[in-house]
Amino acid sequence: MHPVDFIEKKRDGGEHDADELREWINAYVEGKVHDYQMAAWLMAVYFRGMTPEETAGLTLAMAHSGEVLDLSGLGKTVDKHSSGGVGDKTTLVVAPILAAAGLVVAKMSGRGLAHTGGTIDKLESIPGWRAELSDEEFMRQAREVGLVIAGQSKNLAPADGKMYALRDVTGTVPSVPLIASSIMSKKLAAGAQIITLDVKVGRGAFMKSLEEARELAELMVQIGRHAGRDVRAVLSQMDQPLGRAVGNAIEVREAISTLKGEGPEDLEELSLALAEEALEAAGMDTSAAAEVWRDGRALAKLRAFIEAQGGDGRVVEDPEILELASDVFELKAEEEGVVSELDAYRVGIATLRLGGGRESKNAPIDHGVGVYLLKKIGDSVRPGEVLARVYHRGGRGLEEAAALLRSAYKLGREAEKPRLLLDVVA
Amino acid sequence: MHPVDFIEKKRDGGEHDADELREWINAYVEGKVHDYQMAAWLMAVYFRGMTPEETAGLTLAMAHSGEVLDLSGLGKTVDKHSSGGVGDKTTLVVAPILAAAGLVVAKMSGRGLAHTGGTIDKLESIPGWRAELSDEEFMRQAREVGLVIAGQSKNLAPADGKMYALRDVTGTVPSVPLIASSIMSKKLAAGAQIITLDVKVGRGAFMKSLEEARELAELMVQIGRHAGRDVRAVLSQMDQPLGRAVGNAIEVREAISTLKGEGPEDLEELSLALAEEALEAAGMDTSAAAEVWRDGRALAKLRAFIEAQGGDGRVVEDPEILELASDVFELKAEEEGVVSELDAYRVGIATLRLGGGRESKNAPIDHGVGVYLLKKIGDSVRPGEVLARVYHRGGRGLEEAAALLRSAYKLGREAEKPRLLLDVVA
Repeated sequence: MHPVDFIEKKRDGGEHDADELREWINAYVEGKVHDYQMAAWLMAVYFRGMTPEETAGLTLAMAHSGEVLDLSGLGKTVDKHSSGGVGDKTTLVVAPILAAAGLVVAKMSGRGLAHTGGTIDKLESIPGWRAELSDEEFMRQAREVGLVIAGQSKNLAPADGKMYALRDVTGTVPSVPLIASSIMSKKLAAGAQIITLDVKVGRGAFMKSLEEARELAELMVQIGRHAGRDVRAVLSQMDQPLGRAVGNAIEVREAISTLKGEGPEDLEELSLALAEEALEAAGMDTSAAAEVWRDGRALAKLRAFIEAQGGDGRVVEDPEILELASDVFELKAEEEGVVSELDAYRVGIATLRLGGGRESKNAPIDHGVGVYLLKKIGDSVRPGEVLARVYHRGGRGLEEAAALLRSAYKLGREAEKPRLLLDVVA
Repeated sequence: MHPVDFIEKKRDGGEHDADELREWINAYVEGKVHDYQMAAWLMAVYFRGMTPEETAGLTLAMAHSGEVLDLSGLGKTVDKHSSGGVGDKTTLVVAPILAAAGLVVAKMSGRGLAHTGGTIDKLESIPGWRAELSDEEFMRQAREVGLVIAGQSKNLAPADGKMYALRDVTGTVPSVPLIASSIMSKKLAAGAQIITLDVKVGRGAFMKSLEEARELAELMVQIGRHAGRDVRAVLSQMDQPLGRAVGNAIEVREAISTLKGEGPEDLEELSLALAEEALEAAGMDTSAAAEVWRDGRALAKLRAFIEAQGGDGRVVEDPEILELASDVFELKAEEEGVVSELDAYRVGIATLRLGGGRESKNAPIDHGVGVYLLKKIGDSVRPGEVLARVYHRGGRGLEEAAALLRSAYKLGREAEKPRLLLDVVA
């Protein structure tokens, strides 16, 4: 099919079949379809949308544009994906629980960009821990430990990488079928049978409304079904950050506390929900999640996982090994009230400015900086009381971060703790 | 303004102002806005449209992206543009009439592409005639003869050239504001005060419906007014070719016959209408058109024009000097009936296949080949009677051309001659 005919078909409201989508994606990866043609088509998709069948066809084409991991023979494999949030360390809690309960978590994970952190970045704050594993090491650890998280070294779904970069500079990011195919193409290429999606909703997330998030979740579940995978999605609130810690080392500390039963309530609640959905998708008893959590097997699994990848396992007993920046600034309340808003996006950007995230691809990050939120929505505050503790490196980015945090907090006369879990799509 | 913000503004239904349009077009010509960003924006324009004010702003920005001719001091200058048709030799009839009536026709003209011919290509079938003129020659001839037609050597509206090439490969051609800005940007840069537009409607034209064509014409008139020019548009039928001759030399022959009062009725009718609109826009007596036509001054002006550009002026007395290919095939009717359809598009493509047009930019063309239509819509036909004469070069493209012509003709029991002039927009 000629590229112009293909573009015009979508422009005029037509429906692509799986064969032509595969041809289109392959031609794009090979450079036979030009960026300007893909850009025109992406904009046409923005306006015309795609049916679930088309989106599934596009996703499969993107998933097969590069290597596809073969995890068969590893038992019940599970992958977990978060659509990106602030303070989101759920992978560090959920993955050990699932591995301890008998599933195999063999996961390739990305690094963070913009205001949301990446799991690999967080794990790299553990002394000695390394993300780069050979194929052999990856498979052996999956078999022996049941939990492995590696940096994405493989050429997984290269069409997605190329298309995402293009969407970013052509105003074609906010399209539900394009977002769904981007996320799911990488997950399908990563090979796990069970895929658990943590879809964030709210001002700290890419999806701003529940309706949009539900549409995205339903589409991703359908794509997974089409590809023969078991996909479930949990929709959760991301107006304020998850937990109290935002940063890298500080988030690993909080994840460890949580596995010890001493974590913040919201992080516990979401982690349990995600773990139970994965177990249910695997046809297992969902009560196993709470059980391995309570009896310490999940924490032991985390330690085994850290050590298998060269990390200092003692952090599990002694989280102080995870160094925080020694300069601390305390943001104090100026008046009395109840926290009515805590803008996750601003907290994320504040952490970025401190050096805790990447302003551009491949930029180095500072694992020790971060923010600890002593007050969250619904908490009462007296004048002079500390709202948040800011761990900074010699004042770098502090002024801007402090201003962002100040404006992230809104105090009112009263406020209820917001509902965290919004919906499950299965 | 950041390119992504600009694209998103149109994507979300916003309206651009003249300043940001100028910034966008200049950045595109300078390579700071990439083809893939322009492509995404063009597709957004396809879906969202543009207001007349926006379209005027875009057109002016495109017109000023390169050189702008200064024709001031030449008196009342007029330019004529056809939106492209088959057998359309009206410029060769109208321009001498206007020049003879006292207007100055100083025109840069393009070459043909696809199924429609170009005025320069047609004129080049006259022995010795040359399209390449220096600036000085161009201006002197405008002053002395009142009629000059040169090839487009200037860097007029380079943004349009770049955008048109991009639209062609990204499925963004059929957008009324984009078509209007493309045509008018070149006309504004070409400098004439009076612009007469011949907008074709029908299957041989780019505009397939009268509503579309009227919308385009109204928009172009508004753009012209906005730029301080006097623009009028004549809408005419282009279901069947104009006149009987389609090709290059054969069309010049027909134009000369027409100036002698021996031309086909439809070509006479449209040429007179266009000439009268131009005179009216100039505030002159419209009866001058018929007068200079009848008394031979227009024909004399054509001869003076041809000779001024190095051509053999005797063609005006002896059109046989314009050589036609010596191989002739006669397409004959197989049954009795009345011609009810004569598909202009197929006739245009047939001429292209014979070698009379360009399959690609800069390809050479054969001036002697062409088609002469003995039967047009409404004419009665007996079996064995000649429908069309095909002038070909040793059989090149003849088989395909004959099949196209055969399928271009449809015979019925009865058919009326179609109305040629559909509307005038001023």
